[in-house]
Amino acid sequence: MDKPTIAILGGTGPEGAGLALRWGAAGYPIIIGSRDATRAAMTAHELREKVAGSNISGAVNLEAAEQAQIVVLSVPFDGQARILADVATALQGKLLITAVVPLDPQAKRRAPNWPDGPAAVQAQKQLGEGVKVVAAFQNVGAHQLQEPSAEVDCDVLVCGDDRAAKDQVVALAEAGGMRAWDAGPLANALVVEGMTALLININIRYKSKGAGIRITNVNA
Amino acid sequence: MDKPTIAILGGTGPEGAGLALRWGAAGYPIIIGSRDATRAAMTAHELREKVAGSNISGAVNLEAAEQAQIVVLSVPFDGQARILADVATALQGKLLITAVVPLDPQAKRRAPNWPDGPAAVQAQKQLGEGVKVVAAFQNVGAHQLQEPSAEVDCDVLVCGDDRAAKDQVVALAEAGGMRAWDAGPLANALVVEGMTALLININIRYKSKGAGIRITNVNA
Repeated sequence: MDKPTIAILGGTGPEGAGLALRWGAAGYPIIIGSRDATRAAMTAHELREKVAGSNISGAVNLEAAEQAQIVVLSVPFDGQARILADVATALQGKLLITAVVPLDPQAKRRAPNWPDGPAAVQAQKQLGEGVKVVAAFQNVGAHQLQEPSAEVDCDVLVCGDDRAAKDQVVALAEAGGMRAWDAGPLANALVVEGMTALLININIRYKSKGAGIRITNVNA
Repeated sequence: MDKPTIAILGGTGPEGAGLALRWGAAGYPIIIGSRDATRAAMTAHELREKVAGSNISGAVNLEAAEQAQIVVLSVPFDGQARILADVATALQGKLLITAVVPLDPQAKRRAPNWPDGPAAVQAQKQLGEGVKVVAAFQNVGAHQLQEPSAEVDCDVLVCGDDRAAKDQVVALAEAGGMRAWDAGPLANALVVEGMTALLININIRYKSKGAGIRITNVNA
């Protein structure tokens, strides 16, 4: 079976580009999405040079979303609502994986508790039931993704309200060299998004750079 | 220096008793608190039998809180406000470590997001600034505590607004054979309390019993 095409909206940023690199290396066709087609093409070119034989192209976000079967959202939180409005029609019937971390720029060490709920739940509300939203990859530091064959010492917690969609995301994480877990309903993205604030605290307090989490005591 | 006396309110439950066992084994004087003095005394007796030479006694909650320098709260969430009202005066000027997990009994797999904030923040608001509230131990399964010399394969995330108080809790966790981290302000208890729901999900989905978390990539 052919691998599905993955669009990464915000794929010019380090997290999105890191995911693109790993999935590109695993043989998935990748489209880097950006507001700026030229920047998207440049990032795609750089990634292709890093992964021989990969199929990585660039496009504006809407075009990327239209051409993909799976769409990943990796943009700053303050741009989330606008970009989702732009691509909402193209997402219908598809899987949207959101890696957005909605930290308060004024208080990055504090777990956010926005009145409208976690960013992933906000995305699901905005897009409606025709889009399967799954939250994942919020805790994986971008620098851990940059070398496709290196171990990622951070588990991926996958939250969503559709089990088949979550299983698909777990499999994608594994294809990218990560260990991943079904961590419950989309509402639990509250914890996964907030965990990033705790990891930032730990990085600052203990002078580390890439604190991550692992799930223990499970034989899966 | 003499070790401080630790009262464990709700110490007849498995989590509180497990902490008592480990700190008792580490030489801390322990008072098991309960609404029922007889039950407290029985649990204290059982724990003393497990740890030769330990100093573990039992008392009603208020008496336990009065006699201790450090108080641990390990009760069901729906009893938290009432028990804190009972012991509030005795807690003034002391460190209160809360291990309370405020899961919704009807939805234990869903991270709670109570309108009044995480349980630890609710406790701090109720008790006022005279009590230093620190959240810890929410993610450590009780059965992991039962054998004092066994490794606990779950890190302790410590949240609070007073750094010295957090350092004290980190040291206490280490004295109990656990690895612990300063994970930021008390508001971050939202994440630590909610993580228990994610671990319950993982236990159910992957047929495990004691899923825990570890922080990775930090040299501390």
